[in-house]
Amino acid sequence: MELLEERIRRDGKIRGGDVLKVDSFLNHQMDVSLFAEIGKEFRRLFGDCGVTKILTIEASGIGIACVTAQFFGCPVIFAKKNKTKNIAGDVYTSKVESFTHGKVYDIIVAREFLRPEDRVLLIDDFLANGSALQGLIKLVEDAGATLVGAGICVEKAFQPGGDRIRSMGVRVESLARIKSMSEETGVEFC
Amino acid sequence: MELLEERIRRDGKIRGGDVLKVDSFLNHQMDVSLFAEIGKEFRRLFGDCGVTKILTIEASGIGIACVTAQFFGCPVIFAKKNKTKNIAGDVYTSKVESFTHGKVYDIIVAREFLRPEDRVLLIDDFLANGSALQGLIKLVEDAGATLVGAGICVEKAFQPGGDRIRSMGVRVESLARIKSMSEETGVEFC
Repeated sequence: MELLEERIRRDGKIRGGDVLKVDSFLNHQMDVSLFAEIGKEFRRLFGDCGVTKILTIEASGIGIACVTAQFFGCPVIFAKKNKTKNIAGDVYTSKVESFTHGKVYDIIVAREFLRPEDRVLLIDDFLANGSALQGLIKLVEDAGATLVGAGICVEKAFQPGGDRIRSMGVRVESLARIKSMSEETGVEFC
Repeated sequence: MELLEERIRRDGKIRGGDVLKVDSFLNHQMDVSLFAEIGKEFRRLFGDCGVTKILTIEASGIGIACVTAQFFGCPVIFAKKNKTKNIAGDVYTSKVESFTHGKVYDIIVAREFLRPEDRVLLIDDFLANGSALQGLIKLVEDAGATLVGAGICVEKAFQPGGDRIRSMGVRVESLARIKSMSEETGVEFC
């Protein structure tokens, strides 16, 4: 997606070789007019798949997922990272390893919101090692729902997550795929 | 807001006297068509205030804030609950006490996204004890930005947060204000 690649070139900041900061428009400050274009693109890619639910993971996937869901006319569910008092025991769970935060945590979705008849589109801002996406895929499988695919904004294609998940037979559509990046030469897209 | 009150009456679940579960449409599964109506209502209330940024807090405020921001044509910033490797040191911070999770945590916003010239609207799903909102207000004050007010979906008016924050001179607009609730008699609105 040309618009997103241009924005990454213009406003993305590379730190230390493998960290791409896009927090001025994607995952801290959020440009919702860009999100609308992203949502339209996901609709173009997955619009004929009968999506009934969009599933994402807190926190930075939520905004993109909600704006995208407006183009699908379906609800969003976000997997929560911690068990809170407000969530009863009837949940699907899986484990996610965060390389950014350097820890493993549980994610949960209430069973009542993910049903066998659902056709689920996963949405997230980043795909790098794929741990978050694999955690979400397991939630969909545990629910017996149909996984339509995953819509990703930025894939670090030089990290193994994308290949790993495609090799599981999951359709992954990434709007910007980064082949390589460095502080000296900037970002090169696939 | 009649639509939201009706939805709370229909789909909200009261647990143990002071917990209102609205996770089927507001803060776990999210009805984005309802969010669009909420966003329009906030626009009606705050549309003439020159809002340049919407500030919310992760995670459940993000979806509502992003859909609302589409009606204001401005970006959203969400305050993060944990310091991650991807956020540099140049941040505003404040402390928030979560009664749901039973702990105190720091919230942060990168200084570069909250400027003295900004006119900030706070958006959140719930107002009860007001700790999250007070944390956000402090971030805006620390930045020297102008606080336009706070747009809240559900205020538990029987808890002290709303009164406390209004007494600070902050304009708080809550779309559904709960006067009392119980498992036996349901929800009564103000």
